[in-house]
Amino acid sequence: MYPNHTPAPELITSEWLNSSTSVSLKSLRGKVIFLYCFQMLCPACVSHGLPQALRAAGTFPKQDVVVIGLHTVFEHHQAMNKTALQAFLHEYRVTFPVGIDMPQQASGVPLSMQQLGLRGTPSLLLIDRDGKVRLHHFGIIDDMKLGHIIGQLVAEKTTNGTGTSTIKDEQNLATSKSETSTTCSDLSCRLD
Amino acid sequence: MYPNHTPAPELITSEWLNSSTSVSLKSLRGKVIFLYCFQMLCPACVSHGLPQALRAAGTFPKQDVVVIGLHTVFEHHQAMNKTALQAFLHEYRVTFPVGIDMPQQASGVPLSMQQLGLRGTPSLLLIDRDGKVRLHHFGIIDDMKLGHIIGQLVAEKTTNGTGTSTIKDEQNLATSKSETSTTCSDLSCRLD
Amino acid sequence: MYPNHTPAPELITSEWLNSSTSVSLKSLRGKVIFLYCFQMLCPACVSHGLPQALRAAGTFPKQDVVVIGLHTVFEHHQAMNKTALQAFLHEYRVTFPVGIDMPQQASGVPLSMQQLGLRGTPSLLLIDRDGKVRLHHFGIIDDMKLGHIIGQLVAEKTTNGTGTSTIKDEQNLATSKSETSTTCSDLSCRLD
Amino acid sequence: MYPNHTPAPELITSEWLNSSTSVSLKSLRGKVIFLYCFQMLCPACVSHGLPQALRAAGTFPKQDVVVIGLHTVFEHHQAMNKTALQAFLHEYRVTFPVGIDMPQQASGVPLSMQQLGLRGTPSLLLIDRDGKVRLHHFGIIDDMKLGHIIGQLVAEKTTNGTGTSTIKDEQNLATSKSETSTTCSDLSCRLD
Repeated sequence: MYPNHTPAPELITSEWLNSSTSVSLKSLRGKVIFLYCFQMLCPACVSHGLPQALRAAGTFPKQDVVVIGLHTVFEHHQAMNKTALQAFLHEYRVTFPVGIDMPQQASGVPLSMQQLGLRGTPSLLLIDRDGKVRLHHFGIIDDMKLGHIIGQLVAEKTTNGTGTSTIKDEQNLATSKSETSTTCSDLSCRLD
Repeated sequence: MYPNHTPAPELITSEWLNSSTSVSLKSLRGKVIFLYCFQMLCPACVSHGLPQALRAAGTFPKQDVVVIGLHTVFEHHQAMNKTALQAFLHEYRVTFPVGIDMPQQASGVPLSMQQLGLRGTPSLLLIDRDGKVRLHHFGIIDDMKLGHIIGQLVAEKTTNGTGTSTIKDEQNLATSKSETSTTCSDLSCRLD
Repeated sequence: MYPNHTPAPELITSEWLNSSTSVSLKSLRGKVIFLYCFQMLCPACVSHGLPQALRAAGTFPKQDVVVIGLHTVFEHHQAMNKTALQAFLHEYRVTFPVGIDMPQQASGVPLSMQQLGLRGTPSLLLIDRDGKVRLHHFGIIDDMKLGHIIGQLVAEKTTNGTGTSTIKDEQNLATSKSETSTTCSDLSCRLD
Repeated sequence: MYPNHTPAPELITSEWLNSSTSVSLKSLRGKVIFLYCFQMLCPACVSHGLPQALRAAGTFPKQDVVVIGLHTVFEHHQAMNKTALQAFLHEYRVTFPVGIDMPQQASGVPLSMQQLGLRGTPSLLLIDRDGKVRLHHFGIIDDMKLGHIIGQLVAEKTTNGTGTSTIKDEQNLATSKSETSTTCSDLSCRLD
C-alpha cells in the first residue's frame, strides 16, 4: 500500500474516457480527490464500488471533491479492453473521467496499480487538497465512514490556505413529499 | 424549525433510559451531538432512522461524537408509554441514552418537540462542539451526506480551541477475509 | 411443532382486529391459508416477516390464498397490549385480519401458540385447501422458496375437487415504463 | 412475444459454455425450464436477473426445475464476445449452462432472440414439462410471484403423467442458529 500522508504519485495512463484531455492529479490540487480504482468485470466493483462512486459524485460539492476512476486491469485483459470499457461506462451511465491504467508488457499488473501499491479491486484512494494520500482502502467501505473521512478532508485548508468548506444545511426531503397527517408514511410521521 | 447556528435549547424530559443520570446538552459541550428524535411506532424511525443512529454510534469515535435519543410522542400516547419504550429499546438493542420528551397536558405535542420546532419523526439534529444546531433534518437522510456533514463538524474546533479531530485511516476490511486469488469474492478481486 | 399433514387445530383468540367477525380456519377451508404469527416488538417480525406477509397479501389471488395474522405474545405482555397493537397495525398499514392469541393465566405463553407448538416469532404456517398444516416455519424464509411452496399448494385440489388454480401470465412491468432505446435503464435493455 | 401455451421453438446457438455438450429444450422435456436471457453488460441483468437465476438454481430441486442461460447480444457485439462472456461467467460464479445466441449477419439481433420474440434483456421464459412457454417476462419480476408460478408448473404432470412434485417441508433456519432466549435476535424471538 502506498504510504499515507505522502504525495500521491502521478497516474500513468494510456488514455482517458469521459474527458477530452488527460487528467492529472496535480491539476486537481486544492480539491479532495476520490480516486476509484476498478475493473469492469469485478463483481464487488459493479455491485458496491461503482454505485458508491456515483453516489459520491452526486453528493459532494464539485468545488470540494472530484471523483475520477482508474480502470486497472490485472486479469482477463482481453475481455476488459477499451471497447468493452466504453460500452460498460455507457450502460452504467458513468460520466466522470476514467483513466485506463498503463499496461506493462512484462507483467499483468498495470503501471499505476504497481506504483500506488494497490492490492486489487475495488480500491479507493482519497487524496487531500495538498495532494497527499489520506485513505487507501481495498475492498468495501461503508458510506457513513467514508462520508465522515471526506468531510474532515474537505474541512482542511491547503497549506496555502485556499481551502473552503461550508456545511450546506441539508434540504429536508420529507417536506417535498405530500404526506397525509393522519398516518405515517414510509418516510416519516408528520406533525400536523 | 429551530434556527440553525443558534444555541440549541436544553432538552426537557420526564426521564432518561439507558443512563443512570439525566443527560443535558450542556454537559456534552465540546463534542458533536447526534440527537435522534423518534417514536417507537413510527415505521420510518424503525426501518431507517434507528439503524442509522446505531450505525452512527458504532462509526464515530466517542471523543468526537455522542449519540443520544429523544422519544418524542405526539400520537398513540397510550401505546408508546415508558413500559413499551423499555421493551422496545431492549429488543432493538439500543444502548445509547434515550430521553422521554416531557408531555404537555394541554396538547399532544411534548415540550422539547415544541421548543425544538420538530415537524415530526424521525428528526435528526446535529449540534456542534459549541452547542449550536447545525443540521435539523426531518425524514430520511442518506449515510454519505450525513457522514460528510459530521466529518466537517468534527473537524471544527470549539471557540475555546479544545476540539480535536484526527482522521483514522480506515482498516481494510478486505484484508481480514481469507480470499482465494483465483477468482473474485463478493468483496473484491485480489491481486496475488 | 405441530405435525404437518394433519388438520390444523382451530385458533383460540380473545379478539380479532381488521375484521368485524371472528375468523376461523374452518371457514376458510378450500383456500390456502398464510398464517403469519408475530409479536409487534419482535424486530425480525417487523423487518422481515411483516413486509413478506404484506407482499403475500398483494401477490396471491384472493380466491386461492388468504393471509391472516396471529399476534401471539409471550414476552413484554404489558407493552404489547391491544391498544398498542391497534396503533401498530394502523401505522404499518396492515389491513388483513389479525387475531389476538388467547392469554393463559398460568403461563406467559398464549393458547394457540401452545396448541400449534410454535417455537417463537415470526412463525409462518401454511395450511392447505383441506385444512392441513403443510409448512411450519420458525424464523425467516426467503420469498422464492415460499412462493414455490404456495404455488404447489395452490395447484392442489381439495379432496372434494373444488380447488381451482390458474397461472396468471405475469404482466410485463418493463413495458409500462417509457424507456429510451439508446441505453439501458435500471430495469432492462430494450430492443428497438 | 412468442405466444404462450405453444411449444417453445428450439434454441439456436453458436456454442454452449458450462456444458460439454449442446443443450436442447427437447432433451429437458419433463422438467420445468427456467430460461434466463441476458447480456453481460446489461445493468439490470447483472443486478437483478442474474442473482435471481442463481437463487433459482439453488432453490428448486433439480429433478423438477432446470436453470439455463441464453446470452443474447443485440448491442455492443464487440464488447460482449465469447472471451468476455467466459470471464464474466467465471467472475460471477455462474455454473449453469449458458448458450450463445446465434448471430445473424444481416441484423444485430441474434436468431433465438428473434424466434422467441424477445423484446430485450433481461427476459425470462418458463417452459413447462410439456415444452410449452408458460411465462415470458421482459424486465424484472419479484421472487415471490416467480416462485408462485414455478410452484404451479412444478405441480403439473406431463401429458404422459410422468411429472412428480412433492413439497419439501422447509428446514427451519432459525433452529440452526444458537440464540439466547433473553432477547430477540435479528432472525427471531425464541420461546424458551
